[in-house]
Amino acid sequence: MAAQKGGFTLPGEAGYEALTLKLAEKWGADVIRDSDGTVLSDEIIQAGYDIYSTICIIRDHNEWAVKNKDKLQQTFLCTPPALAVADGTECRLRIGLMDSFFAEQFTVNAGTGAMKYWQVYDRTSNRLLDNGEWTYDAERETVEIGNAVPWHRYTVSFLAYRIWEEISMYNHTTNHWDKEHLMPVEPAYPETQEYLLGWMENWCETHPDTTVVRFTSMFYNFVWIWGSSERNRQLFSDWGSYDYTVSVPALDAFAEKYGYAMTAEDFINKGNLHVTHMPGDAHKRDWMEFVNEFVISFGKKLIDIVHKYGKKAYVFYDDSWVGIEPYNGRFQEFGFDGLIKCVFSGYEARLCAGVDVPVHELRLHPYLFPVGLGGAPTFMEGGNPTLEAKRFWNSVRRALLRQPVDRIGLGGYLHLVEEFPDFCDYMENVADEFRLIRGFHGEGKPYTAKTRVAVLHSWGKLRSWTLSGHFHETWMHDLIHVNEALSGLPVEVSFISFEDIKNGCLKDVDVVINAGCEGSAWSGGGAWTDDGVVSLLTEWVYRGGGYIGVNEPSAVRGYDTFFRMAHVLGIDEDTGAKVCHGRWEFELETGKEAALVPEGVTVKTKKNLYLTDGTAKVLLADGKNPLLTVKECGKGKGIYLAGFEVNSANTRLLYQLIRYAGGEEADGLYMTDNLYTECAYYAQSRRLVVINNSEKEQKTSVRTEQGRKEVSLKPFETVFMEL
Amino acid sequence: MAAQKGGFTLPGEAGYEALTLKLAEKWGADVIRDSDGTVLSDEIIQAGYDIYSTICIIRDHNEWAVKNKDKLQQTFLCTPPALAVADGTECRLRIGLMDSFFAEQFTVNAGTGAMKYWQVYDRTSNRLLDNGEWTYDAERETVEIGNAVPWHRYTVSFLAYRIWEEISMYNHTTNHWDKEHLMPVEPAYPETQEYLLGWMENWCETHPDTTVVRFTSMFYNFVWIWGSSERNRQLFSDWGSYDYTVSVPALDAFAEKYGYAMTAEDFINKGNLHVTHMPGDAHKRDWMEFVNEFVISFGKKLIDIVHKYGKKAYVFYDDSWVGIEPYNGRFQEFGFDGLIKCVFSGYEARLCAGVDVPVHELRLHPYLFPVGLGGAPTFMEGGNPTLEAKRFWNSVRRALLRQPVDRIGLGGYLHLVEEFPDFCDYMENVADEFRLIRGFHGEGKPYTAKTRVAVLHSWGKLRSWTLSGHFHETWMHDLIHVNEALSGLPVEVSFISFEDIKNGCLKDVDVVINAGCEGSAWSGGGAWTDDGVVSLLTEWVYRGGGYIGVNEPSAVRGYDTFFRMAHVLGIDEDTGAKVCHGRWEFELETGKEAALVPEGVTVKTKKNLYLTDGTAKVLLADGKNPLLTVKECGKGKGIYLAGFEVNSANTRLLYQLIRYAGGEEADGLYMTDNLYTECAYYAQSRRLVVINNSEKEQKTSVRTEQGRKEVSLKPFETVFMEL
Repeated sequence: MAAQKGGFTLPGEAGYEALTLKLAEKWGADVIRDSDGTVLSDEIIQAGYDIYSTICIIRDHNEWAVKNKDKLQQTFLCTPPALAVADGTECRLRIGLMDSFFAEQFTVNAGTGAMKYWQVYDRTSNRLLDNGEWTYDAERETVEIGNAVPWHRYTVSFLAYRIWEEISMYNHTTNHWDKEHLMPVEPAYPETQEYLLGWMENWCETHPDTTVVRFTSMFYNFVWIWGSSERNRQLFSDWGSYDYTVSVPALDAFAEKYGYAMTAEDFINKGNLHVTHMPGDAHKRDWMEFVNEFVISFGKKLIDIVHKYGKKAYVFYDDSWVGIEPYNGRFQEFGFDGLIKCVFSGYEARLCAGVDVPVHELRLHPYLFPVGLGGAPTFMEGGNPTLEAKRFWNSVRRALLRQPVDRIGLGGYLHLVEEFPDFCDYMENVADEFRLIRGFHGEGKPYTAKTRVAVLHSWGKLRSWTLSGHFHETWMHDLIHVNEALSGLPVEVSFISFEDIKNGCLKDVDVVINAGCEGSAWSGGGAWTDDGVVSLLTEWVYRGGGYIGVNEPSAVRGYDTFFRMAHVLGIDEDTGAKVCHGRWEFELETGKEAALVPEGVTVKTKKNLYLTDGTAKVLLADGKNPLLTVKECGKGKGIYLAGFEVNSANTRLLYQLIRYAGGEEADGLYMTDNLYTECAYYAQSRRLVVINNSEKEQKTSVRTEQGRKEVSLKPFETVFMEL
Repeated sequence: MAAQKGGFTLPGEAGYEALTLKLAEKWGADVIRDSDGTVLSDEIIQAGYDIYSTICIIRDHNEWAVKNKDKLQQTFLCTPPALAVADGTECRLRIGLMDSFFAEQFTVNAGTGAMKYWQVYDRTSNRLLDNGEWTYDAERETVEIGNAVPWHRYTVSFLAYRIWEEISMYNHTTNHWDKEHLMPVEPAYPETQEYLLGWMENWCETHPDTTVVRFTSMFYNFVWIWGSSERNRQLFSDWGSYDYTVSVPALDAFAEKYGYAMTAEDFINKGNLHVTHMPGDAHKRDWMEFVNEFVISFGKKLIDIVHKYGKKAYVFYDDSWVGIEPYNGRFQEFGFDGLIKCVFSGYEARLCAGVDVPVHELRLHPYLFPVGLGGAPTFMEGGNPTLEAKRFWNSVRRALLRQPVDRIGLGGYLHLVEEFPDFCDYMENVADEFRLIRGFHGEGKPYTAKTRVAVLHSWGKLRSWTLSGHFHETWMHDLIHVNEALSGLPVEVSFISFEDIKNGCLKDVDVVINAGCEGSAWSGGGAWTDDGVVSLLTEWVYRGGGYIGVNEPSAVRGYDTFFRMAHVLGIDEDTGAKVCHGRWEFELETGKEAALVPEGVTVKTKKNLYLTDGTAKVLLADGKNPLLTVKECGKGKGIYLAGFEVNSANTRLLYQLIRYAGGEEADGLYMTDNLYTECAYYAQSRRLVVINNSEKEQKTSVRTEQGRKEVSLKPFETVFMEL
């Protein structure tokens, strides 16, 4: 099949003009970009390629920031609880605000507008102190509680300026940079807005050759709080939380608009903060809406300037992405022309592909850096970037078989690839494969099973595909494994919330997956106290739906069962109150359902599970502890999995469970019979694509409408066939 | 040392008179008893021994019971939730009350006085239905709900008669008895009381040779609910729960006395019932008090009759023990002359020894039955009763070194031992060892460490030493392992409640142990919401106390920490909200505290533990997960153990942690230097007893006030030395 060209973004590098242009030709690039740390020379810019330029709107303004230190970005911080040790008759407690925080990242914001948001709590009794009960010593940066209750513990929640933009901080400390610390400016201040609009205008004026301005990203970084101790440097990080969107003007404007003020505790939440993995409350939802409105309204002004200069505006979905929300239905209001997502995993490719925006582009790994994110060598002695590239492409490719993106590309220092010619050859192969697959999608959709899957969690569509950040940050949650498995399966996938269920969305769904721990956003937490949700799902199952629960699905305390859907699953978890109850005995199922479990499936053991009424069939167990069960409920099915970790066998298991729950035969059309391989069939172009997801040679056969096709595949290979 | 005689109760057996008298001589018996299933002949009765006779006051009255089926014992039962499947326009739900219960054990009590206590619940919405919303069909034994909410789940809680006394039922089904099913009569009915008092009088008249009447036990069996399915026969069992004390007259009398009525839900508790392992609520406490008052007042009338005939009254602390409560401060009101406890474990020996009663007697295992409790062979081909006896004595002996009892004995069919002469020899040895140790205690107390230990849990003194039943029923709780370890350690042990702490008990305590899972009675559950308890314990630690927390000590939700004592322990558990928080790094402690951990210690791993402020020293860890930590808090210490399983190494660890928490040196007087051995020193008699707790030969040395003593011990051996 003839190789096409285009759809590829190459990181150019001044001083390596010949290499830049040679690889642009080899990889079929149509765009050349700069990267953080590289520039493009005139020779490259004038070579006839489109040019992407990277800007980060809230840093790189240190000259202005130094003069406006009262307009930097902020956050709430909460001191660790201090114990009021009673010593003699009085009990005075003095708490140093910054003792446990990284002094290069934060300074106290004790401005008059700020202090009204500070809060001192007695954490022993969950009591907010009156402001008269404590005093602030600005010089020593301490809060003193004059009349502490002996042996109670106290915290101070205060506003802090963030004086070191976190990505800059990370690069300094990880890659030993010694450049100036960049400070994040806060666009909630009118003066900042005025400055940034002028800066944007000037930037466009002075960059006439740039065709695409790549925003990295808008204004607010994901949360990353560092501590003072080297033994506990990273106190908190959450890729999806809104703590860093706080500032005095934003808080004041919110109070004005919503009729109530957000408090420090709305963010601090007993020291837990509001991690994305837990359900948000109403205040958090209001605040997210408020921030999103601001990011759109001020962001759009910047994008309008870019458009006015005839350039396109793309947004990089990482770093300062908070408040952008590509899945909340308002993303189109920005007017972005494209969205770029760096990808390690298949679910990230689907996240990008699913956004309603003209151009979707993936930034592939590995980046052209000497070392990778974990600090291991990549483009240097000891590294194997080709193998890395194969593994990453392996994860992404199966997702792109299901849903296409428009472009791929790389980032980093191009000259590093010179020493790795096999990497250059492999990327040529990747680029060609990508363009072929994209072309098949262009002619028509790939074959999918009939069963339509919906992933149910607290955030619903807003957190489609992703939980909060990358796989390596969220691996402890079953759902990221489920999402990764789903990203390459031939099924329609949607993400629904409990609100969606109440609004009738189940009529368009065949199988609901609900995967997570008790109390988490992914399991659903308090949403399961809503009897209406339970009833709607129950009825839907009895009418033919399939409910697949993983780990602690529908778990909430206060009812006769811990899993609210236990009656559908036929299994429940004992939280301790049922330790004296007998357990239904069972034999492992040997009937047709046993075939749903491919050889090699592994499910981590989970204790205290028990069959509720003995009717569920047990497909996997650890001794007397059932781990995988299926139960018929009316015309539908309840399926329980104690946990899910993504790998080839478990991915196949999930697909077979989905088909079973959806009433489809286990062995369908366009399924490989070797679980280390997968395939996609594009009926319009009559193309069958078979992929080897393993590092070993594989043989497989695929049942097609034209009979069985036998295929042999080299490690990681993609085979294209015309039927 | 010369062997004494006495303190031994032998089970005699008619037809084996010579054997009975020979073994009575060999084992030094002074009492001969009958057993369930055996009788004594005149030859035995007249042989000059004291005679124990066993009676069970609430069974063995079938002639009367058949005529008074409306005065049998009762219980609340709750049907499994039934789903209201909406089918067309109306939604009628019919629930068969007895569908899931063992028809030979229960019948519905639908008498007029009973039905007012029935309750129908919508378990989906936790709603109690009005009585008008359901009807009972007595013929079909079904409840019909005319207007069920579609897709909600409903239960019926009803009163049932218990028509088969549970121990009789167990013996029938386990040992294949085919005798008449015995029915338990309910003494709450005045007619039953009249009958039983007459029967008791007559029994005493007709048993002139009996010197001790052994009650088995009083009236109410521990709870044992059987199901209709052979796949789930034992629906619920709790050795310490009060469900079987329910009856219409008792419920009515309670309402009159307490001014409010107990409801079915007070017992059913969403289908969980009120297992002893969970904290009781105020209603449960009232009910227990009410039942105890009744058991004492009517029990005393029976005991008075026994005394009137010049006989003694002993109580067997098992089977129908519920309501007797030897540790609630009222036990003496019965007027019992002795308490007999069957023992598998050391903690059961301490439980017996600690009761304020004239005579304490242990019934040793193995019983003289062909098979043991688990169904394995004992006194039959394939059995090894001598090895069993050694192992049981091994557990009990170390407890008896700490606190004596007055008597030991056996039960069962004596003729079975004829085939096992080594068993007869070993029992002679046991009887002699027992009498020697008892003699040492008689001269003065054994040496104990200075540190006084209190075990803290919801039940406090009421559940001294035991949780709820035997070790093999409660092994999943850390505390039973802790109790078993403590039962033979040279420390003073008390059991305290949260109320005791508020009443100032900590002034007499050096170390508090709090061991259990979140929400359990053993950890404390909701008691930890009391700020006063937390403050008192905190202050006490800072003034020098030691708090040892095991598993999920002080755990309760709703605060900034999950463990309320996290600030003292320096460690906490993440319930999910802190998944994005950083963790303090640590190195395993290599300083002097490392020596607290003997070689061979094992602690099961537990996830999601983290250091709160980095100051705790980590003595054991599973990778980055700390499992055993110690922390200095003021003058005291906080110690955390992720779990505790009793074995020789872990028992030694616990002792060393207790000494450390109490400020004593790790290596004290009268400690063996081999953890498979232990010792006790009786200063008044200058006797040192060294025991080998293992099945292998051991050598050890003991530091005494007369210098080091070296000892070699055969497997399980007891060595007696005079210093």
